[in-house]
Amino acid sequence: MSKILIIGAGRSSSSLIDYLLSNAKMYNWHITIADANKSVVESKISDHKDIASAVEFDANNNDLREKLIIGADLVISMLPAFMHGDIARDCVRLGKHVVTASYVSQDMKDLDAEAKQKKLLLLNECGLDPGIDHASAMKVIHEIQNKGGKITSFKSFCGGLVAPESNDNPWGYKFSWNPRNVILAGQGTAQFIENNKLKFIPYNRIYKQTETIEIKGYGKFDAYANRDSISYKEPYGLSDVSTILRGTLRMPGYCKAWNVFVKLGLTDDTYKIKNSDTLTYSDLLDSFLPEGEGSVKEKLIRFMGSDIDSDVISKLEYLELFSNRPIRLKEGSPAELLQNLLEEKWLLKPGDKDMIVMQHQFEYDLNGVHKKLNSSLVVIGDDEVHTAMAKTVGLPMAISVKNFLTGKFKLYGVQIPTVKEIYEPMLTELESLGIVFSEAES
Amino acid sequence: MSKILIIGAGRSSSSLIDYLLSNAKMYNWHITIADANKSVVESKISDHKDIASAVEFDANNNDLREKLIIGADLVISMLPAFMHGDIARDCVRLGKHVVTASYVSQDMKDLDAEAKQKKLLLLNECGLDPGIDHASAMKVIHEIQNKGGKITSFKSFCGGLVAPESNDNPWGYKFSWNPRNVILAGQGTAQFIENNKLKFIPYNRIYKQTETIEIKGYGKFDAYANRDSISYKEPYGLSDVSTILRGTLRMPGYCKAWNVFVKLGLTDDTYKIKNSDTLTYSDLLDSFLPEGEGSVKEKLIRFMGSDIDSDVISKLEYLELFSNRPIRLKEGSPAELLQNLLEEKWLLKPGDKDMIVMQHQFEYDLNGVHKKLNSSLVVIGDDEVHTAMAKTVGLPMAISVKNFLTGKFKLYGVQIPTVKEIYEPMLTELESLGIVFSEAES
Repeated sequence: MSKILIIGAGRSSSSLIDYLLSNAKMYNWHITIADANKSVVESKISDHKDIASAVEFDANNNDLREKLIIGADLVISMLPAFMHGDIARDCVRLGKHVVTASYVSQDMKDLDAEAKQKKLLLLNECGLDPGIDHASAMKVIHEIQNKGGKITSFKSFCGGLVAPESNDNPWGYKFSWNPRNVILAGQGTAQFIENNKLKFIPYNRIYKQTETIEIKGYGKFDAYANRDSISYKEPYGLSDVSTILRGTLRMPGYCKAWNVFVKLGLTDDTYKIKNSDTLTYSDLLDSFLPEGEGSVKEKLIRFMGSDIDSDVISKLEYLELFSNRPIRLKEGSPAELLQNLLEEKWLLKPGDKDMIVMQHQFEYDLNGVHKKLNSSLVVIGDDEVHTAMAKTVGLPMAISVKNFLTGKFKLYGVQIPTVKEIYEPMLTELESLGIVFSEAES
Repeated sequence: MSKILIIGAGRSSSSLIDYLLSNAKMYNWHITIADANKSVVESKISDHKDIASAVEFDANNNDLREKLIIGADLVISMLPAFMHGDIARDCVRLGKHVVTASYVSQDMKDLDAEAKQKKLLLLNECGLDPGIDHASAMKVIHEIQNKGGKITSFKSFCGGLVAPESNDNPWGYKFSWNPRNVILAGQGTAQFIENNKLKFIPYNRIYKQTETIEIKGYGKFDAYANRDSISYKEPYGLSDVSTILRGTLRMPGYCKAWNVFVKLGLTDDTYKIKNSDTLTYSDLLDSFLPEGEGSVKEKLIRFMGSDIDSDVISKLEYLELFSNRPIRLKEGSPAELLQNLLEEKWLLKPGDKDMIVMQHQFEYDLNGVHKKLNSSLVVIGDDEVHTAMAKTVGLPMAISVKNFLTGKFKLYGVQIPTVKEIYEPMLTELESLGIVFSEAES
């Protein structure tokens, strides 16, 4: 019998939990789910009392954490990334495997040698992005390289969006994951390589300097560059590539409208506006505009110049940003005040379906011919709980846990799904669950 | 006899040291100057061996620091602001007074009660800006208020520039203080109040959303808003003011040109560019430009649109930014690579004179009449060592040390020169040393 401990049962964990519960009897697993809100977990496992148990989790209680980990063989952490370090240190000390969907942290790297020596797995980056992106890109990269092809350009895009049938607001966006991350997305400087040249895009123009991609049957999407694409050259075995870029997808027009917030300073999270509950959202907008004649809307149009149009204005009107709608928070950073509004406006309502879109674009030379290949994925959620986000984040982890526990791959220390032993069975099973990439040569 | 310890004898300390040395005999002081570079100090005190001594300072040696402080009655810290905390804690514990030119830190606030109880002075913000700005503004504010006037608007500007006679580069700028601070200036978000409205300007447009001020005999200057002007309302006794703004001055045209660096991302200090010594400055510029046809200069002109003109281009050409000049640093943030170039191009050469410019603009109502008053200061340096910057930073501290040690003011705990006992004798003596504000009603 294998004892699996899942820590954190939030928004993105529903598919992970469902998969493990439904496979538990066949593989003789016991599942313990620890969350700050024990009653939420209890409702999720009510039909599986024989194979699963719910426990209260308190991130500040080190003794409790250790006790829970001692009782497990493998620990899946669904907590925010900064909390993985403590869990992983306990796990390696106590001889337990660890699985997360987060980027490999310095904490994990520091534990690598000891984990390898103790034959413990530290599987990270095993969700959607990072996760399915690694797996699906590496499959194509290895196929091209095995044929003798030389990849010259690799671009990869991913977005967590709203499905067309639930797309009833002008932004084409609803929150299927942590709203705060959406508000702060793009902060920092994007770094990539284009035509053998180092390229940088700072935050101040990341939503302006976009490109457009197209996915058959789903139309066009805006794409803006992600933080550090260059760091993917090595792990993907693409050290000679002349173009490498990773980007985030939004519905067409989203980026032009979001650029208004960036240019104004409304996504700033570095200082608090005090007594913000004495302001309206129109006052807030006005605070970021140079003084001048006319209404707030007129001032904004003058300020943005060619960076605004009627489509952007209708998006801002939808958010009531020109209205006397009062701000509810007593104090908050501009980003927090904006988030408080968007959490209402972009709520995934009962029955709403989200959508995950991913596209890899490869260019390569094979036998003297320059070729192009796109590999694309679209996943639609079932409803506002069993989202495409929860499926694509949770299932790669759940499948990989099963494959590891059943001996399908025997790898230890820090791992990410760029290796064939991990990605091949993962992608095969994801296909059977409806998560299927389609490839198109051009 | 009073024993004065000066820690740090860098660029801005020459006038402070000269003043204290020349007054030491009259007031029976002994001056100890501690610096990481003892030989530099020795050359400065060679004519004053009877009243001054030089010692080696090592910021990481706590025992040495304590030993030096034990031997002093009053300690002046000219070290970077983040190092004042350790010194001030030692001083209060050991019963010594402290003087700095830096903003009051949380460390200082934490020591306030104990210092008051022990009758120890913690004088901060006693240089130029902060320092002379407080003193000179408060003098006018108190005069207006004492006449029964009500101040409605207060704007205050300051800049450390190059004197007209030494202004031989198109930027009108040379470094008279820490270059790194000039490169990073404006980062964050400026906050002020204009016509009773909260106003914010984020970094992305701080060098674009400027105003112009004029100083009689010296012409016009660009002014961009400083970080947090709102925090000055309380200490200046201006809680009812409808406009409050503090800004930094540059020569006309500087801000439009510097805005190119901000928009490109060249002042970013958050990541390193590796192997930067394989790049030219033209390559660096190109890395921040969207790919396209033409030369780097053509791409930049297209990218900046109406935000560039021939004047800006000639400033960039002066810096050799379109040239094959190699970058010398092996690795650096964009800000560091830019700084390395500017340190050569904007060097204060032998004989060069710098210039400090300050202007306070008051509007107030008196007996039913709305009035305007400008109070302006221009200080020209003697040469590249006895700079206007060193005079205006060092003399307010030196004078206040004398005034405190001679009993002209008896204040303890955290103090800044907004109180009459400190600013009045300071301003009077500064006038006798040629640092004179001129007032003009309009």
